[in-house]
Amino acid sequence: MASKKPPDSDTHINDIISRIDPKVSGKTMVDLMSNLFPICRSITGRGVLETFAILRNYIDLRIHEVPTGYQAYDWVVPKEWNIRDAYIKNKHGERVIDFNQSNLHVVNYSAPISATMPLDQLKPHLHTKPDMPNAIPYVTSYYKEQWGFCLTQNQLDELPEGEYEILIDSSLTEGKLTYADAILPGKSEEEILLSTYVCHPSLANDNLSGPALTSLLYQILAQTNLRYTYRFVFVPETLGTLVYLSKHDEHIGRNLHAGYVVTCVGNSGPYTYKRSRQGNSIADKVAEHCLKHVDEKETINVVDFFPLGSDERQYCSPGFNFPVGSLMRSMYGTYPEYHTSLDNMEFVSKEGLASSLKVYARVVQIHELNKVYINPSPYGEPHLSKHGIYPTIGGQKEGRESVERTMYLLAYADGINDLVDIANLANQPAWAFTPEVEALTKAGLLRIHEENAGR
Amino acid sequence: MASKKPPDSDTHINDIISRIDPKVSGKTMVDLMSNLFPICRSITGRGVLETFAILRNYIDLRIHEVPTGYQAYDWVVPKEWNIRDAYIKNKHGERVIDFNQSNLHVVNYSAPISATMPLDQLKPHLHTKPDMPNAIPYVTSYYKEQWGFCLTQNQLDELPEGEYEILIDSSLTEGKLTYADAILPGKSEEEILLSTYVCHPSLANDNLSGPALTSLLYQILAQTNLRYTYRFVFVPETLGTLVYLSKHDEHIGRNLHAGYVVTCVGNSGPYTYKRSRQGNSIADKVAEHCLKHVDEKETINVVDFFPLGSDERQYCSPGFNFPVGSLMRSMYGTYPEYHTSLDNMEFVSKEGLASSLKVYARVVQIHELNKVYINPSPYGEPHLSKHGIYPTIGGQKEGRESVERTMYLLAYADGINDLVDIANLANQPAWAFTPEVEALTKAGLLRIHEENAGR
Amino acid sequence: MASKKPPDSDTHINDIISRIDPKVSGKTMVDLMSNLFPICRSITGRGVLETFAILRNYIDLRIHEVPTGYQAYDWVVPKEWNIRDAYIKNKHGERVIDFNQSNLHVVNYSAPISATMPLDQLKPHLHTKPDMPNAIPYVTSYYKEQWGFCLTQNQLDELPEGEYEILIDSSLTEGKLTYADAILPGKSEEEILLSTYVCHPSLANDNLSGPALTSLLYQILAQTNLRYTYRFVFVPETLGTLVYLSKHDEHIGRNLHAGYVVTCVGNSGPYTYKRSRQGNSIADKVAEHCLKHVDEKETINVVDFFPLGSDERQYCSPGFNFPVGSLMRSMYGTYPEYHTSLDNMEFVSKEGLASSLKVYARVVQIHELNKVYINPSPYGEPHLSKHGIYPTIGGQKEGRESVERTMYLLAYADGINDLVDIANLANQPAWAFTPEVEALTKAGLLRIHEENAGR
Repeated sequence: MASKKPPDSDTHINDIISRIDPKVSGKTMVDLMSNLFPICRSITGRGVLETFAILRNYIDLRIHEVPTGYQAYDWVVPKEWNIRDAYIKNKHGERVIDFNQSNLHVVNYSAPISATMPLDQLKPHLHTKPDMPNAIPYVTSYYKEQWGFCLTQNQLDELPEGEYEILIDSSLTEGKLTYADAILPGKSEEEILLSTYVCHPSLANDNLSGPALTSLLYQILAQTNLRYTYRFVFVPETLGTLVYLSKHDEHIGRNLHAGYVVTCVGNSGPYTYKRSRQGNSIADKVAEHCLKHVDEKETINVVDFFPLGSDERQYCSPGFNFPVGSLMRSMYGTYPEYHTSLDNMEFVSKEGLASSLKVYARVVQIHELNKVYINPSPYGEPHLSKHGIYPTIGGQKEGRESVERTMYLLAYADGINDLVDIANLANQPAWAFTPEVEALTKAGLLRIHEENAGR
Repeated sequence: MASKKPPDSDTHINDIISRIDPKVSGKTMVDLMSNLFPICRSITGRGVLETFAILRNYIDLRIHEVPTGYQAYDWVVPKEWNIRDAYIKNKHGERVIDFNQSNLHVVNYSAPISATMPLDQLKPHLHTKPDMPNAIPYVTSYYKEQWGFCLTQNQLDELPEGEYEILIDSSLTEGKLTYADAILPGKSEEEILLSTYVCHPSLANDNLSGPALTSLLYQILAQTNLRYTYRFVFVPETLGTLVYLSKHDEHIGRNLHAGYVVTCVGNSGPYTYKRSRQGNSIADKVAEHCLKHVDEKETINVVDFFPLGSDERQYCSPGFNFPVGSLMRSMYGTYPEYHTSLDNMEFVSKEGLASSLKVYARVVQIHELNKVYINPSPYGEPHLSKHGIYPTIGGQKEGRESVERTMYLLAYADGINDLVDIANLANQPAWAFTPEVEALTKAGLLRIHEENAGR
Repeated sequence: MASKKPPDSDTHINDIISRIDPKVSGKTMVDLMSNLFPICRSITGRGVLETFAILRNYIDLRIHEVPTGYQAYDWVVPKEWNIRDAYIKNKHGERVIDFNQSNLHVVNYSAPISATMPLDQLKPHLHTKPDMPNAIPYVTSYYKEQWGFCLTQNQLDELPEGEYEILIDSSLTEGKLTYADAILPGKSEEEILLSTYVCHPSLANDNLSGPALTSLLYQILAQTNLRYTYRFVFVPETLGTLVYLSKHDEHIGRNLHAGYVVTCVGNSGPYTYKRSRQGNSIADKVAEHCLKHVDEKETINVVDFFPLGSDERQYCSPGFNFPVGSLMRSMYGTYPEYHTSLDNMEFVSKEGLASSLKVYARVVQIHELNKVYINPSPYGEPHLSKHGIYPTIGGQKEGRESVERTMYLLAYADGINDLVDIANLANQPAWAFTPEVEALTKAGLLRIHEENAGR
């Protein structure tokens, strides 16, 4: 099991990225997710705490809590939910539906019940997905006290008429909602937010891929001196996010440079970037630039913000309107296994996770590199060969891409375009410009324009 | 025959629209057009008065007049033209061309003539459409005193050489130009203009469909309490419009919210929306939104303003530059029957007229509904189930479109977007949002933003 | 040989353009280029002077010079290079590579050398183009003192091992850089710049087509009274341009309306317009409008500015950011013959040159005609027939395009749109509007809006 590393290294971000070994990181994430998979999480309760305990082997999470009754904007933290066991037993006393086989079998947040009733009376409490007869649906009822079971349509079809003994050994008590965060401080107080959620029970792509990738990204960033401060947020979806915002909204509003909701990053489907509500924020510009260049063969989906989905709904609500997008692979709601028992560890892959990690690392790298430069000798081109930069024999094709990067930097470093703008004009990835930026800077032909940090 | 109704009802605009019966309204419009069809209209003269007399059975028109010599901007009202009879008789005394058969046979505004002349001498006064040998062309000469006949190419080809007796029993005298309007007052002094013209003789799609549809739209709107004031203008094309503007330009300039020239709405061709010269006026936004959603199977043509066509040329002249577009089916100049005797009652249909009426009613409905809202709790999403709005069991697909409308309203009601903007973002018709607007408003989660009425 | 003509005629620009005879001008340009082709040009030296001497038979060039050591921004004029002879002789004393056969055989700016050496030692100084074995590449080394020969890959493959006698009888001495310009004064001090370069040795499309076309364009413009002042610049590429700018940057910055780098206009490939760095300058608007209409069957490539290419790199460097684009046929770097001995007189054609000249003449014509007009009677349409402009019989299709031009002028002459904007709205070429502009102006229905000259 990988251990967390202290943020004391000063290796350059470019070198950190180039050293990521997809095989190692892919296996690490799958192992972590496999450990987390069996836990019955919800928006409150011991499942979240058990999840944090495991994650703390990878990321230096600080654990926080608020009590039942805590108000976050329009929301109130409900009673804490815990569950020990649940089943439906047939007349032979056999568990035909057993919580121990899948924690999806119980409607999440079900009230306790212990009763015997005929199938007809039980059926209104049974949820299936008729169009996917092998899948147990994921159903929740956080705010209306009720109880229910989820099962496959095939299981339902096989239940004979008759009496069934049912038990949901759960509790709803005054308690707390638990959440966590970690901060990697950078030179600037400006922050980049990586937010993921930890409330789904045994579901792999949505949602365990998110905490796993975010934890490894933390490890990568902990190895370098950072420009931006990084805020990693692990919360129960929606309510936890609102609780977190209620504690930090002013700070985030003042310091947030860009943010991403990390979810659905575990399978091998094409990448999807969901823009922030702003639609043209720096978060969007960097993510879209990254996806365009990270693998030219991949198809990419870029979708405008829509007010359904995950925690970007809160970060982008009109009062906040934060620059927070979401970079995913197969997006929630768009793949058939979504919110069913088929979104399991077989649905995700080491390769998919590792590639997603690489993309997130590239996004972070671009933010770290993205500055506004200015060409201090903007009248005509500099005589580059005099400065030792340009090939001295004309007519050769060698180093064409490097020459282009040099020329685009000189032509467009005007104190307005940032590096991503220039890279977009040159149709090359921003992370490729480091040697040319360094050479030009050393020659006095380029310098950072202090007044603008590339928003 | 339908009778006009007083504007005293307070039925909600949505209910009025839903009650329109296409069969009834289609038949009503065809009957009205059939009554108007035989009248020989022009820009002045008794034809227009007879037309208004019939229309007043449907719409409470106020009749106005200006005398010959009245100046409207660069134009002067010419002598009044009236005609009783006209013919070309062959050597046997037979009427080979007879005004009684079609009033298109005379060049509109022909000076009187009574003469006998050989065919060669007559020919320069004969107008045909050689590429459509069965069609009589529609030709006018309002401002140059001359005379002429229009006939089919086939008729011309059959005229033998020889002497012909011709008569045009018309008169050009000091008189008047007649026009009309009707006002349906609303809560606001801001106006929506519906302008149509009444100067073409026996021509159906261009132009009788316009006055027929406009009259029935008046009847629909008269049944509800209106937000906007509606101005219905019935004028001879171009000159009448300029006369009308000369009387009301300041008032219209001050109060006009949006306007449409109603013409060419009678056949079943695909809809065409011609934008106002502004190109992005509220008239354009609403009409384009409406056409996108009124029938998803219909193809739609949206064309930029061009300074040829109908009365939008005057409303959109650069000094006025009013937000006036034109919503049509097959547009003038684009269908072969245009301005010929083949643009007759067989060219139009009850179904086409009724569908066009529905579209115009939808346009009006959207204007009535289109307001700028604000979400007064914009920090995070409201806890909807607490307010009784959201389905309490997660994971279900029922009411998905309603949920989307709710969420888009909350996410984008920021005091800037109007309802049409939000509906466009949600890709749903604006008229579908009424239940969600009402529910959110009732729950205190949405309110009208007073400062902006959705221009 | 055509002679230059004095700028004393007052023929209208439209008439000048219409009188251009493509056969005559095509032959004139080919003859001129054939005279210039054998000269061994470089960025300094006698070749440029010989070139100017011939060009002065066509254009009234003023010759200027700066000495070795002159500083232009970041650049310093190097020693002057001249060459008398060069060869590689085999062991039989035969010239296997002979400067007299092609001046491309010597690396441009080679230092002198006289030596005998084995092939192995010679090879590092031999440049070929292996993917085009019949082509001698064009190679330069202006700023690093070295020597070399260029030859075809086939020639290299046939050289047996053994000793070779080599000579480059060149000199690098304190001297001068020579450049030239010509001015055709217009009514306005605002200038249109036509910049071409004169430093390539025997290369036809890139670059002799540029000076040839520019010289004939001068002759055309010299025959008319001009609105703009025209500045024709003939310089060694890059360095010469920077020298020119160092002498005139303030004047050009103050007066430049639009400019074009004239190069690669000699073959019959599709037109390419490379936009100025501004991307939407008046130079771009006019060139793109012209290419759209000059020949509707031609495909057109419009490319955004990129900081590689020709002298637009200097004019558009971020400190200047001048409105200078480049209108070409097959662009440098995109055709295989580029910068090889195959870019010769067979690569270009009379027809291609003549068509390019016509396009440049049209561009100039549009600049001359392009003004901002205002309709002084903007309330409604004017009654055109009253002013003798409009066909008096309605319903006829004759003169439709002229009517459209009239109506578009009236509808959009608002003191903001210029003639090209109006022509773009009407989708007609700007040069077609002259009769309607004159008729409307004469009728008092249009006038020049003084405050805006159409930037």
